[in-house]
Amino acid sequence: MKSPLHDFLAPDSIAIVGASADPTKRGYKAMIGLIKDGYGGAIYPINPKTDMILGVKTCASLDAVPGPVDLALICTPASTVPGILAECGRKGVKGAIVLASGFKETGAEGAKLEQQVLDAARAGGVRVIGPNTSGMFNLHKKVNLLALANVKAGDIGFISQSGNMLLSLVLEAEHNGHVGFSTYVGPGNQTDIGFNDYLRYLGEDPQTKVATLYVEGFRDGQRFLEVAREISATKPVVVYKSGSTEQGQKAASSHTGSLAGSYAMTVDLLRQVGVSVVQHSNEILPVAEGLGLMQKAPGKRVAVIADGGGQATIASDRLAEAGLELAELSEHTRRRLGEILLPQASLVNPVDVAGSSDANPALLAECMEIVAEDDNVDSIFLVGMFGGYSIRFAEDLLGGEMRGAESMIELARRVDKAVVVYSLYAPIKPPALRRLHEAGLPVYTSIEHAVRVLAALGERGIYLKSRAVASHAPAVVPSEDMKAMFARAQNEGRDLFEFEAKTLLRAHGVDVAPEVIVRSADELPAVAAQFGEQALVMKVVSKDILHKSDAGGVKLNLRGEADLHQAFDSIMSSCRAYDPNADIRGALVTPMAKKGTEVIIGVSRDPIFGPVLMFGLGGIFVEILKDVAFRAIPLSQLDAESMVDQLKARKVLEGARGEPPADKAALVDLLLKVSGIVSAYPQISELDLNPVIAYPDGYAAVDARIIINRSVL
Amino acid sequence: MKSPLHDFLAPDSIAIVGASADPTKRGYKAMIGLIKDGYGGAIYPINPKTDMILGVKTCASLDAVPGPVDLALICTPASTVPGILAECGRKGVKGAIVLASGFKETGAEGAKLEQQVLDAARAGGVRVIGPNTSGMFNLHKKVNLLALANVKAGDIGFISQSGNMLLSLVLEAEHNGHVGFSTYVGPGNQTDIGFNDYLRYLGEDPQTKVATLYVEGFRDGQRFLEVAREISATKPVVVYKSGSTEQGQKAASSHTGSLAGSYAMTVDLLRQVGVSVVQHSNEILPVAEGLGLMQKAPGKRVAVIADGGGQATIASDRLAEAGLELAELSEHTRRRLGEILLPQASLVNPVDVAGSSDANPALLAECMEIVAEDDNVDSIFLVGMFGGYSIRFAEDLLGGEMRGAESMIELARRVDKAVVVYSLYAPIKPPALRRLHEAGLPVYTSIEHAVRVLAALGERGIYLKSRAVASHAPAVVPSEDMKAMFARAQNEGRDLFEFEAKTLLRAHGVDVAPEVIVRSADELPAVAAQFGEQALVMKVVSKDILHKSDAGGVKLNLRGEADLHQAFDSIMSSCRAYDPNADIRGALVTPMAKKGTEVIIGVSRDPIFGPVLMFGLGGIFVEILKDVAFRAIPLSQLDAESMVDQLKARKVLEGARGEPPADKAALVDLLLKVSGIVSAYPQISELDLNPVIAYPDGYAAVDARIIINRSVL
Repeated sequence: MKSPLHDFLAPDSIAIVGASADPTKRGYKAMIGLIKDGYGGAIYPINPKTDMILGVKTCASLDAVPGPVDLALICTPASTVPGILAECGRKGVKGAIVLASGFKETGAEGAKLEQQVLDAARAGGVRVIGPNTSGMFNLHKKVNLLALANVKAGDIGFISQSGNMLLSLVLEAEHNGHVGFSTYVGPGNQTDIGFNDYLRYLGEDPQTKVATLYVEGFRDGQRFLEVAREISATKPVVVYKSGSTEQGQKAASSHTGSLAGSYAMTVDLLRQVGVSVVQHSNEILPVAEGLGLMQKAPGKRVAVIADGGGQATIASDRLAEAGLELAELSEHTRRRLGEILLPQASLVNPVDVAGSSDANPALLAECMEIVAEDDNVDSIFLVGMFGGYSIRFAEDLLGGEMRGAESMIELARRVDKAVVVYSLYAPIKPPALRRLHEAGLPVYTSIEHAVRVLAALGERGIYLKSRAVASHAPAVVPSEDMKAMFARAQNEGRDLFEFEAKTLLRAHGVDVAPEVIVRSADELPAVAAQFGEQALVMKVVSKDILHKSDAGGVKLNLRGEADLHQAFDSIMSSCRAYDPNADIRGALVTPMAKKGTEVIIGVSRDPIFGPVLMFGLGGIFVEILKDVAFRAIPLSQLDAESMVDQLKARKVLEGARGEPPADKAALVDLLLKVSGIVSAYPQISELDLNPVIAYPDGYAAVDARIIINRSVL
Repeated sequence: MKSPLHDFLAPDSIAIVGASADPTKRGYKAMIGLIKDGYGGAIYPINPKTDMILGVKTCASLDAVPGPVDLALICTPASTVPGILAECGRKGVKGAIVLASGFKETGAEGAKLEQQVLDAARAGGVRVIGPNTSGMFNLHKKVNLLALANVKAGDIGFISQSGNMLLSLVLEAEHNGHVGFSTYVGPGNQTDIGFNDYLRYLGEDPQTKVATLYVEGFRDGQRFLEVAREISATKPVVVYKSGSTEQGQKAASSHTGSLAGSYAMTVDLLRQVGVSVVQHSNEILPVAEGLGLMQKAPGKRVAVIADGGGQATIASDRLAEAGLELAELSEHTRRRLGEILLPQASLVNPVDVAGSSDANPALLAECMEIVAEDDNVDSIFLVGMFGGYSIRFAEDLLGGEMRGAESMIELARRVDKAVVVYSLYAPIKPPALRRLHEAGLPVYTSIEHAVRVLAALGERGIYLKSRAVASHAPAVVPSEDMKAMFARAQNEGRDLFEFEAKTLLRAHGVDVAPEVIVRSADELPAVAAQFGEQALVMKVVSKDILHKSDAGGVKLNLRGEADLHQAFDSIMSSCRAYDPNADIRGALVTPMAKKGTEVIIGVSRDPIFGPVLMFGLGGIFVEILKDVAFRAIPLSQLDAESMVDQLKARKVLEGARGEPPADKAALVDLLLKVSGIVSAYPQISELDLNPVIAYPDGYAAVDARIIINRSVL
């Protein structure tokens, strides 16, 4: 599918509405940006009050433009925008950038004006970037509407709801010296074009090797996930999502009017579709550069080659914290390293050459070549002062450094493993490091940033591998009986009863404890006979009684017929006393669950991301520690497995404190079944299994609640 | 107390043992470093094979040196060092730097040689830096023994077990352009002089404004804590401690032979004594610079002034993540901001000027002045493109930027609040930012680093305030009875019985449930009468039965005389069967504890840091989530309070899920009592209260275990 954005993000003709001869105005800056960079298409300044701007003849209005217009940059105030967009429509303009702010980010009045902007654009068939945007550039097409100086054309496509963040990356890139950009767009309030559209464009753009996004809020998150899943299969997608805290979410909302949504959930869902999520703003450029340059992304086992024990230690700490592993070097590898290194070298990963390279820096490249041949190694991480030997020790070491650099470049090209270099000399860019960078090997100025890159590479590698084998559970086919059950509840204006919810789950293979509805005391002897010696629990069935315990509607630990009679009488009388008008359908009897580990599963339809499944351990783990995992539905087998693995408290499930481990396979199966059921029944608005008791063999769903989507019959 | 290190860390005469004319050798580099930098003292190259090095006459041996020698730099191999130190002793050398590696970091042989080094030094009265060190410099004294180029004299004293980390900071400082160093020492294996000695020296050194340490392992952690507590009262102390992970600890140990110790514990103990702990190596220099320049450190409430909503959002997220608060600006402050800003500006912190400063960057300084007058504000954080207005918008804005910079400098001098600037233009150092930096206002290149500085300032401010009011619990006076009880246990070659441990605790005011030792069944009727209706628990008393439950030595939920008889018989017979030779002293009877929140308190004598108290919630919180707090004993009131506040799961104690909150004051009192008891009784090697049940009013220590220090009678 070809994105329609190509038509105006790589435009052959541009109109500047509100072009100006005042150098502080955007209507001037855009012109000078185009002219200075040598834009090859037509430029039409629109200004009825002057004839010529920067040597280009103006037009009094869009209508007066002599040729076609692909893109209009609208620099005029908010109130004028709907009218200008109507003009754009008449002219056949394909896309318009609305710079003005003063729309939905300012409140209800602004939101009304923004709706008018959208209506005018739709009516005229014009696509809109913004409003409330810093604009765009496409450097390979020499469209530099921000008139940024010293910005290099390159591989990084960047979509950012913060203009300052663009400036910040551009200055970082200038200082780095080797990073360039393809297309930048500020999506602003995303009234028409959203992140999903821009991502598709970057995915298709051959000049973009890595799609990078600074996001305050998604408009259509569900669609974004679909596009990201598709694009990330062939091109790295890097996202910094703001609003990781409540404070940040408030700030974001007053900035672009975006709904931030739950940060933890957003991060989980983005990772689910292969996005590399960056958590600090100063890691955006290093990670984008690393992923863009090193398209191969093998796994999490890193070999560290260091020329100092302290930094080897720091690297080890950061790698472990980032969830990476120090690769276990084979006996053979260690022997080979031992042959070229001094006796005091440490041959166990992290390898510390301990002075062996002082007189021969190319030795570091030899070490890298040796560990690269080890099957236990996914990535090679050089740590220390490479590039600075000729500065620190002796000038004549420069030759060795340059030879070492060439070997590293050759190695990186040859092997299917990532090669990442941190050098403490990187800030002053000595020749060997410049050479590495020119050849496409990024050099990092901090161990921390280098490790973020290694982590992003490793995660991407594992994602791509797992994607290749990902299997979804067989689809659940909705049954007529169950559809009728939903329809009955709809007709009665209620949600599903607990026993109905359980019936649905049971119908689709979920292990729910057997249960019986008792409508009158006459049925109790048969019930007692059915369950025999087991301890039972009895709960009232009534749509009108939500808090069953408060109403005296729950009795535990019942054994034998006498207990059942007493409990039934007590429940009926206290529930009638609690709410005399309650429609009481009877009582539910089910065995008490055996002791096990409580987990909870919840599904809700997120306004941004659609149906999302949450999994966690029960009680304090969810409520206080917020130790939960989220995945968008439908889940693959690997999604379900990774939800369990992701929990900080997973050790509780793995059998802590002498307990046997819970049956992970059964839980994974349950997650997939719930995912399938929610996909099959759009009638479900929310679903809660709280708790599910996990056992060493299997599980029991002991409580179920389903809220109905009233708009689906 | 004057540190003896001044004598040789600011030496008036230096001998280079193993001086060399080979430019790749340390014995040459040190000479050239001294000569180039214009060292004013005497230089004595020691080399029997040549007459002159770099124009300086050599001596054949130390004995042949004509004048006194403050410092000897020993560049010769490990095996020669004990002999040379003996010579140093004869010559009256005050301190010697041993560069060679090949000592305890390499194993048992090396450790033996290192002991010989120490013996020789002690015998001759020579203090030793190293071995296995990169050396030292004192730039204010022009002692540049590392011959580092482009390193400025300045405020930062640095002690680092990683030579590469020094090089890294020096290069960062060179690139920063405004940071300089006072004294550097590589303590290496710390065979003689340890971190505590160096810290005292830096504390006393008038040229050092901030003491900064990269530590792989402390040798005498308890002493270090004492010195750090003293120094940090008047001078910031910044520590990066490596070994935050098991992988890192392994790497550190193979590097300097240091015992890393528990990272979480080390961090807690360092913070307890006012140390600013840095967790990423790339934050060491920014934090040291910030703390060094801004000696005032007010609190955690930060006002953000931003000229872009996106970066305001990022700043808000990072501040909240770092435990800082967005200051709530007063009505008055917001009104004043409203008077100078455009209508679209956001006046709620984070303040986003939203274009108001585009034509007048000095307006940012005005905003900073306004929020600085707000009593709710501790620190002012400028975020955005200040310094780059004249580059981005119009050259003639430079005047406004320079005026703004002067106002900020004046503000920072005038107010008792920290002023921290992040600018996205910092990497290219425009004039307004250079001016800020020259005037002692650091400018950060990333929001993340600036926030680390704000956090360090805020934490230090709160520490200094709390230090002023810190009170220790009244000392516990050991009683003769209790000392006799310890002596009895010592004599019997056992640890304290549970009932003895409880007796000790009770004697010093800890709330321990009442309990009775039953020696024979005859006593049971009286016991039953004493406890009346309460449910009781009975446990065997025997030093030989460690796992009481396994031996059938514990019975729960006993009510009335009959239950007690049955339980006593059962315990006695099953314990005798379990271990026929066990010395069984009877059974302990105590009421079953009411339901409450389980916490645990543990005390151990750490080999590095001495007696340390641990506090946490019980069970999985300790065992799986490792959610515990550590403090060195003795604790202050604030130490104890902060232990409770520090727990991630503190909400469980604060009354989660409808439960009433636990009695924090009682828990704090308990922590202080335990601290006092451990201080008073050196006989205690380990103490465990597991669990203590916390209630809305008070607590109950239901189990106690005390391990005896066999060396104390």
